[in-house]
Amino acid sequence: MSRWAQLSTNELSVLEGVFWLHGPSREALSQRLAFSRTHANAVIAGMLEQGWLDRAGQRESSGGRRAETLCLHPALGVLLCADLGATSIEVAVLSLDLQVLARHGEAIDVRLGPGLVLSRIRALMREVLAARKLKPRDVLAIGMGVPGPVDFATGQLVEPPLMPQWDSFSIRDDLRAEYEAPVWVDNDVNLMALAELWRLKRELPNFLVLKVGTGIGCGVVCHGEVYRGANGSAGDVGHICVDPAGPRCHCGNVGCVETMAGGPAIAREATSAAQAGQSAMLAERLAANGMLTPEDVGNASRAGDATANQIVQRAGTQIGQMLASVVNFFNPSHVFVGGGLTRIGPLFLASLRQCVYQRSLALSTRHLEVGYTPLGDQAGLIGAGVLALQETLRGRAKVLA
Amino acid sequence: MSRWAQLSTNELSVLEGVFWLHGPSREALSQRLAFSRTHANAVIAGMLEQGWLDRAGQRESSGGRRAETLCLHPALGVLLCADLGATSIEVAVLSLDLQVLARHGEAIDVRLGPGLVLSRIRALMREVLAARKLKPRDVLAIGMGVPGPVDFATGQLVEPPLMPQWDSFSIRDDLRAEYEAPVWVDNDVNLMALAELWRLKRELPNFLVLKVGTGIGCGVVCHGEVYRGANGSAGDVGHICVDPAGPRCHCGNVGCVETMAGGPAIAREATSAAQAGQSAMLAERLAANGMLTPEDVGNASRAGDATANQIVQRAGTQIGQMLASVVNFFNPSHVFVGGGLTRIGPLFLASLRQCVYQRSLALSTRHLEVGYTPLGDQAGLIGAGVLALQETLRGRAKVLA
Repeated sequence: MSRWAQLSTNELSVLEGVFWLHGPSREALSQRLAFSRTHANAVIAGMLEQGWLDRAGQRESSGGRRAETLCLHPALGVLLCADLGATSIEVAVLSLDLQVLARHGEAIDVRLGPGLVLSRIRALMREVLAARKLKPRDVLAIGMGVPGPVDFATGQLVEPPLMPQWDSFSIRDDLRAEYEAPVWVDNDVNLMALAELWRLKRELPNFLVLKVGTGIGCGVVCHGEVYRGANGSAGDVGHICVDPAGPRCHCGNVGCVETMAGGPAIAREATSAAQAGQSAMLAERLAANGMLTPEDVGNASRAGDATANQIVQRAGTQIGQMLASVVNFFNPSHVFVGGGLTRIGPLFLASLRQCVYQRSLALSTRHLEVGYTPLGDQAGLIGAGVLALQETLRGRAKVLA
Repeated sequence: MSRWAQLSTNELSVLEGVFWLHGPSREALSQRLAFSRTHANAVIAGMLEQGWLDRAGQRESSGGRRAETLCLHPALGVLLCADLGATSIEVAVLSLDLQVLARHGEAIDVRLGPGLVLSRIRALMREVLAARKLKPRDVLAIGMGVPGPVDFATGQLVEPPLMPQWDSFSIRDDLRAEYEAPVWVDNDVNLMALAELWRLKRELPNFLVLKVGTGIGCGVVCHGEVYRGANGSAGDVGHICVDPAGPRCHCGNVGCVETMAGGPAIAREATSAAQAGQSAMLAERLAANGMLTPEDVGNASRAGDATANQIVQRAGTQIGQMLASVVNFFNPSHVFVGGGLTRIGPLFLASLRQCVYQRSLALSTRHLEVGYTPLGDQAGLIGAGVLALQETLRGRAKVLA
């Protein structure tokens, strides 16, 4: 790694700029870095020669020669990324421009504990590397998202409600045995927010990414940076109360939005409705499988089942009530909604939006846009890649400072 | 003003540093600005000579000679500040180290409209200047807080619910007729937040200032800067719903915290209780004055009146419910509570805190501190001073950039 120590602060800024601008032209890069053209050219020439940067995009098009663009040199390595959910895991190798080179996803229950889950993750990491004939030493940095609060400095989980056995566990130490590359861990929704920030080349300074699935959480971008709060728990909106007369949550309080409208609540409501004879479609499905999932409710809703529609609308409205409070407080320009519950059909987003626009102040919603996460299912993995590369570059800069 | 145009970016940084560090030593200043000692001394020497800076604090103490500290030169001028509330106005002249040189406060109803209210403010501004034998040309900058949302770039009010006649009115244009100095306008709670940020020398990056009075609003500090949101309405927490079965608010929705627990709600509840014979103390006060105020409820509560205690506790709990949602989302390190309702007795803050600690997640409240605004009643005026000086210095920097 001693090669990195030779980079100047300006050179590290160039690497960060090339990454965040998705392979810019020299002009775009020097503009964003506020370097003069001459200064930028001198720095870039050296970095091309030393193998930090490479040329890309120089090809003929109908409009004549395209401007040369710059990219991080592929020989710098790859990013190894994992996105751990409450019930699933995705592992991938990404190039430095965040293209997925190899990927593997499967179901897993985080409650199995860190020992079993991480041993499976390490096996999948070896697998995706092998699929591209890569070795551990080709890995420049590792990024991982987890479905719970993380102390960002130490990379440890802090009292994660969905994964109690992981409390104070250090994923970083676990992976250090197999990889020399630095390991960065963050909450899954923070990574989704970071991914969208990268997609947008940092051009939107204030927005939210809401993840709705088993749990409900929110990634917060403020002043152009992911905001983690004083203790890393910012965006923990699942336990915001939407009904003081609502049912008791496992957290001890009543009416938490996660307990009333998260994935398990939807499955539970559907099961009751099926058992009470309110929906032939859901009852049939329940009889066939012995259980109901939010996906079953979504399928029934899309097929026009009135009871399923009601369940989906109620969940959208309750999550919308929570979001309306957050929008009043935070006044974001955009809310991007992702996670498994987005697959339960268009009525979900419609109900959520209706509630937000009705319950928030006019000034907060005048220009507010609420839609699905553009990066969809890939947001978590891409965010892990952004985290890994960004923090590695910042870490190098810090060593020098 | 041409004298300002001669300042370099480094010199402007020195002025900002001296202001934000409350008159630092040379060592503290050069450390914060990351200037070498030699470079800092050279810049400071020139600025002392040209009358931008002055020496202060060089006096004998029992421990020997004190280190010399620096201040902005008093000859640069004064700051003219106004803090407009829904029912009151404070106007003051502040020195550049934010000492109040002259101050006048009185009751006024903002609903009289901008014509009448601003003519009174201009008269008070002349009065406070005259009290210190100052002229309009001595004013370096003007800052003003208003109880409604402001488009920060234009200085115009945007659909302010408590002051409808002020919609799109430009306070800046109005004051321009009398003063050459630049005019900066912001929401009153943003200014309270800015004031606490200055008091703390920017050492807390993420905190909230909650103002509870006729309305309920919140100033947000995020990543060390006041956060205004995408449209300037961040912190507009008064219309967050705390009870879906609650009463209808003038905004059209139900259960808004401001309608249930703001100053008018407390007065209304107390009046009903007095009329229903639930409190001899409140009934006596109502008979004497023909009306009840939150202060009356506070006095009765302090005197041990059980009904008054209940009203105060209910308001604290309802505001605490709203604050719990905001704390879950934002995870601040501190919440500073100010505004008129803080005068209704210690039960108010106690109930509010109890609710926040009970309803928010353990991780969000583990290190959370909830207390009164240390700057108290002066927060609004001091914030107007910080705004005026900070934006004026930034404005000069921009002209040069």
